[in-house]
Amino acid sequence: MIEVTISDSQHRILPLVPMLYVAWADNVLSPSEISVIKEKVSEISFLNEEDIALLYSWIDPKNPPSEELIQKWIKWIRTAAEKQELGSPDLLMDLSNKMAAAGGDSASWDSDEARTALNEIRNAIGIATLKDHRSILTEELREAEAKQFSKPGFAAAEMQILLEGEYSDLIQRVKRLLADPVFRLRHHENKDAYRSIVMEWCKLLAEQGYGAVAYPTEYGGSDDVAQYMNIFETLGFHDLSLVIKFGVQFGLFGGSVYWLGTKKHHDRYQTDIGSLKLAGCFAMTETGHGSNVRDLETTASYDIDSGEFVIHTPHYGAGKEYIGNALHGRMATVFAQLETRGEGHGVHAFLVPLRDDAGNELPGITVKDCGYKLGLNGVDNGRIWFDQVRVPRENLLDRFGSVDEQGNYSSPIESRSRRFFTMLGTLVGGRVGVPRAGLSAAKKGLTIAIKHALKRRQFGPEKQPETLLLDYPMHQRRLIPLLARVYGMHFGLQYLTRRFANRSDEDIREIEMLAAGLKSWSTWQTTAILQECREACGGKGYLWENCFADLKADTDIFTTFEGDNSILMQLVSKGLLTEYKREFNDMNPVKLVKYLVGEVSFAVEERLGARSTNEEHLRDDEYHLDTLRHRERHLLKSLAKRLRAYIKSGMDAYDAAIRCQTHLLALGRAYSERVVLEQFVLALKACEDPGLQRVLDMLCDLFALHLIEEHKAWYLEHEYMSAKKSRAIRKTIDRLCLKLRPEVSALVDAFGIPDHLLFAEIAVGEQS
Amino acid sequence: MIEVTISDSQHRILPLVPMLYVAWADNVLSPSEISVIKEKVSEISFLNEEDIALLYSWIDPKNPPSEELIQKWIKWIRTAAEKQELGSPDLLMDLSNKMAAAGGDSASWDSDEARTALNEIRNAIGIATLKDHRSILTEELREAEAKQFSKPGFAAAEMQILLEGEYSDLIQRVKRLLADPVFRLRHHENKDAYRSIVMEWCKLLAEQGYGAVAYPTEYGGSDDVAQYMNIFETLGFHDLSLVIKFGVQFGLFGGSVYWLGTKKHHDRYQTDIGSLKLAGCFAMTETGHGSNVRDLETTASYDIDSGEFVIHTPHYGAGKEYIGNALHGRMATVFAQLETRGEGHGVHAFLVPLRDDAGNELPGITVKDCGYKLGLNGVDNGRIWFDQVRVPRENLLDRFGSVDEQGNYSSPIESRSRRFFTMLGTLVGGRVGVPRAGLSAAKKGLTIAIKHALKRRQFGPEKQPETLLLDYPMHQRRLIPLLARVYGMHFGLQYLTRRFANRSDEDIREIEMLAAGLKSWSTWQTTAILQECREACGGKGYLWENCFADLKADTDIFTTFEGDNSILMQLVSKGLLTEYKREFNDMNPVKLVKYLVGEVSFAVEERLGARSTNEEHLRDDEYHLDTLRHRERHLLKSLAKRLRAYIKSGMDAYDAAIRCQTHLLALGRAYSERVVLEQFVLALKACEDPGLQRVLDMLCDLFALHLIEEHKAWYLEHEYMSAKKSRAIRKTIDRLCLKLRPEVSALVDAFGIPDHLLFAEIAVGEQS
Repeated sequence: MIEVTISDSQHRILPLVPMLYVAWADNVLSPSEISVIKEKVSEISFLNEEDIALLYSWIDPKNPPSEELIQKWIKWIRTAAEKQELGSPDLLMDLSNKMAAAGGDSASWDSDEARTALNEIRNAIGIATLKDHRSILTEELREAEAKQFSKPGFAAAEMQILLEGEYSDLIQRVKRLLADPVFRLRHHENKDAYRSIVMEWCKLLAEQGYGAVAYPTEYGGSDDVAQYMNIFETLGFHDLSLVIKFGVQFGLFGGSVYWLGTKKHHDRYQTDIGSLKLAGCFAMTETGHGSNVRDLETTASYDIDSGEFVIHTPHYGAGKEYIGNALHGRMATVFAQLETRGEGHGVHAFLVPLRDDAGNELPGITVKDCGYKLGLNGVDNGRIWFDQVRVPRENLLDRFGSVDEQGNYSSPIESRSRRFFTMLGTLVGGRVGVPRAGLSAAKKGLTIAIKHALKRRQFGPEKQPETLLLDYPMHQRRLIPLLARVYGMHFGLQYLTRRFANRSDEDIREIEMLAAGLKSWSTWQTTAILQECREACGGKGYLWENCFADLKADTDIFTTFEGDNSILMQLVSKGLLTEYKREFNDMNPVKLVKYLVGEVSFAVEERLGARSTNEEHLRDDEYHLDTLRHRERHLLKSLAKRLRAYIKSGMDAYDAAIRCQTHLLALGRAYSERVVLEQFVLALKACEDPGLQRVLDMLCDLFALHLIEEHKAWYLEHEYMSAKKSRAIRKTIDRLCLKLRPEVSALVDAFGIPDHLLFAEIAVGEQS
Repeated sequence: MIEVTISDSQHRILPLVPMLYVAWADNVLSPSEISVIKEKVSEISFLNEEDIALLYSWIDPKNPPSEELIQKWIKWIRTAAEKQELGSPDLLMDLSNKMAAAGGDSASWDSDEARTALNEIRNAIGIATLKDHRSILTEELREAEAKQFSKPGFAAAEMQILLEGEYSDLIQRVKRLLADPVFRLRHHENKDAYRSIVMEWCKLLAEQGYGAVAYPTEYGGSDDVAQYMNIFETLGFHDLSLVIKFGVQFGLFGGSVYWLGTKKHHDRYQTDIGSLKLAGCFAMTETGHGSNVRDLETTASYDIDSGEFVIHTPHYGAGKEYIGNALHGRMATVFAQLETRGEGHGVHAFLVPLRDDAGNELPGITVKDCGYKLGLNGVDNGRIWFDQVRVPRENLLDRFGSVDEQGNYSSPIESRSRRFFTMLGTLVGGRVGVPRAGLSAAKKGLTIAIKHALKRRQFGPEKQPETLLLDYPMHQRRLIPLLARVYGMHFGLQYLTRRFANRSDEDIREIEMLAAGLKSWSTWQTTAILQECREACGGKGYLWENCFADLKADTDIFTTFEGDNSILMQLVSKGLLTEYKREFNDMNPVKLVKYLVGEVSFAVEERLGARSTNEEHLRDDEYHLDTLRHRERHLLKSLAKRLRAYIKSGMDAYDAAIRCQTHLLALGRAYSERVVLEQFVLALKACEDPGLQRVLDMLCDLFALHLIEEHKAWYLEHEYMSAKKSRAIRKTIDRLCLKLRPEVSALVDAFGIPDHLLFAEIAVGEQS
């Protein structure tokens, strides 16, 4: 509640303020309006001369109320309005009554004489219906309030430090490196030339030591995977082909050797991988088996006589597909079905040399270029087939499964399924990195679109300068909630990185789930955000020079590589189900009853909250968190019920899950959104600078409400939210967009994208 | 109602059928289930030996019920279920009661003894909660029904004829022409080489007479704009740069000369334009003024002394932007502010030569390449500046405004604003053509994604062949509603073309509104559909060879060129408002009262329908149309109210409209969707072939329900729809997707895209 100091006269005429505010809303008080007010006020006997004089000073057309006075009125009205629902059918009179009560003079104002006067004034102020009063009292008010914040309330540089956190120095170093002319961004016509340039860029980064940062110091690194992720993300401001090439070499290839191999492999290869002396591939995906890795068909049969593995592609469709570095790589980590002594042991990884030092393919290796792609044409993706290729036994990356000379298989992990998932662990790093690259692309796209909207004028009232795009409410509605979303993605993905960097055997399952969920959710956001930004820049957004061509094309694959989002989201939900079952099974009867009672009372509380529409409530983080948690929990419980019913009815678990696919997807998404909001709220709470906190608070509210609005059909359908509340949320979002309008320029500056990386002609340069 | 023949014993044991059906749903009847059923049934005294024998034959685990018997059960249950809501809290018992009534034996079954027996059987059949029964009785039933339709129920070729209509022959001719090796699709690295190829293609089309079809016969045409649109759409299956180049030359440049010029211009230029002897540009858009044509800054000042117009670009930002054919064109239709005798007369069009016969720029002309773009790199877009370029007075395209030798201006249209909009009329043709090219792209994308999903298998139950992508409910849900949407777009855009081809002065405003709405709605659909299709094809969708790279990139600009969709949708709504005002003002008091009463009773009827969830209702075209019309009408009325209130409160009309931008957008969209649904329903009603009609009926229902689902938050918020109904709609959509599953292959074949144009490796070839 805002504290308001107020004089006696002001107190007494307070109930007239809402009407005066509405009357002045058009900046004009007509003579007839003035005369009615004067006449009616004179009939109110308890107002003294001083009161009348004050009132007259407020209705003088030669001296319209000052901005300061209007702001005062707004505060008074807000104070009263906050005590009640703005949805009242007779809003203006109700407000008057409230203000009379606030002024301590409700008894006097409750007289017939006063009531009649108020009624007639209300009818005279030129606006026909109560609804119209309402729109002025809500929409006008918010605009007037927004004027208070014409300058950003915080320094972009400070926000940037908050966003970059402890890796800020590293990030600046990478950006400075990318300012070198050799990294100049340009259009590439020919893929082969482009690929060579990207390879050169990768080597330059390796020379700086950036390729190896995640590896132990003995192999030239810093043993710091978070550093790696920050470099990866920063490169995302530059060229996404470079990002992916970098990730394939140091993350996937290097990561697989490090994670799946043992000391002999590390000693022999890790340093050369980090320095890019040894370029390599991560050859997992096959044409016939994209997401379904478990069923891939390449074989690795152990030949006891020679002590070698024979790597073989059984048919054309079992060739490795989309393999990055396939044209430049000299070696590949190949995933194949291990067979020894006539028995299969499932998918394992093998180091297979592809080319000699001169770059010629070795015998039995066939590599075919994947050709031009929708984007990422600086990455040499190819297909690889193996025709009875022999590699020594040591080339099995044998951390989780080994074969001795006699061909006996052994593994530290007994469960075949757990072993499989442990070996897939290399992919988790990719799933942490990819959405961060996508985040950079989204930040860059939004920066361009917002800076353009702050320079570009189009249409306008007659004989006046044209209007700035970002001053159109529609344009604000298009871009500002996306800005809030990008901030959410940022905090969510930072959390994921922290968890990944500090993972242990205990929480690896949870982190895999987290990575699968946030990777999918974030990359879908990136695609949607870039599309909106491109359209918001119109034809300019279509020119290559303004970056959207590459940003959109290069990130488009993010939603389906490193795990197809639709598949990953189902994995997330299956993980949640497993947790849920455990939680449920662990309960003793007393706990169970408590649990069920808890659920019921939670439901009642929700129901009570369904109609609350006051701003304080709508902007309460707890309300946001509850709302997102409720959806996740509800989706989880109803999913568990559905599955149980199917299975009890005799369906096998596979079929049951297939039937629930869309349900699984919705749950995975609800989970991801809840996690991201939690992280946003935590980041907000951890922020100690009041300027930053104020704007983060608005962004966080906007982020949450915009998500709730996106799912409002669900909330309405499940009676978690009334129609009235849904409308109040929409208005609060509009209001937040307007309030954030003066802050957006600094908010995108805080992404810290220097001009040489921002690049786009429409974004770099002066703003209005 | 399905007619069911039934024996006496069947009659008597009918109430047990739902339980037996549920019991057999898992294909297993356990010994304990059998013994409970036998025991309880023996306690029902009114069943005779024959009844019991029949029943026993239905619960024999060695002889499970035949498929035929199950289908019979389903029919019986459906017959009963259709009499009541499936939402009943005790569905199984209710069904039993209904079936007892249907069997004419409700009295016997109403005994305590029978009721107890039924209850105990219900509890014994292995499923814990009533909800589970429900899901089996709804979801299982629908699958069992779907099995009845394993083959498409219609011939693709017949559907193709229905879609192509009277221009089928022309369309086949264009496709055959495009089969010529010279038109072979390929990847283009370099824009200049690509542009030359596209120019050659355009010339070949002109040689066939296709460029001039819309012009009168005396200029080599057929005077048939619908032919032109069909050619344009068919080219959309080939290369979209070709489509746009074709449209720029023959539609925009040729169209502007024809529409804005007079006989002298036609005689001199029209034939050469149609044969592409004279390549030209449509130079309207300026850098500073994209959508805001009225305020463009290029000037055309009449010089009385020389009898010439001086075409001039006053500053760099007033240069013409994104002009197609700018590098190849020898002439341009230039839009500029006409000034004569010191007075401005607004925007007019002038023919300005750009290059000499050798292709060199003429004095005062500067052309700069727009460079690489996100897509359409086969089109030579450029920027053009004019430095005091002189053209003879005759070069003013003077149909709607002319200047005599002395510099006196005259126009057949008095209102300056109406004149301006009339001159913009050339753009309407573009707005009819562009969405049709987008439609072709969407058809091609969907064909590729669906054919891929009918070949590609991924994951599956253990030890069984992997599952076809399109057999996943999720994949059906992703693609099949989009297929229905493309059919809707087809019928909607055909209607637009017909209206445009037969336009008159009376209905031109309406057609402009229609074009603006359908152009925007359709092109947004195209963007969304192609994105979904690309993702549905995973990594394969990312390879250039599978077409999505070009389809997505080339169509991306469709949403913001030929009028930015967000602006066009606002124009639509402003048009609707004007109509609405006229409608309202024209009413005499009696009519007005009737009108208001009509609105009220409509509202009551709606409210009554809000909870109805039976399938017949949900699949009723009238219900769909009412629902879409209601939304449009409601948005229109509330918009009018809001605007009126703002204006009454003293805001000017411009500001008021700005505040309502998102409202305007929503209304424009609602209008477009309603129009498209109406056309779909009309097409369905006009179809006389029962096979085609059956599938179109399902598609049309799916189209409508999917739209309603998309807006369900709105319908829930406005209490037009209950939560229960919303859920029923979701299930009906699922059901329709499943029912359409066997039809989709033929439904995309009906688009008639031959393999040489379909091109994509993943789509062309054999299907599972």
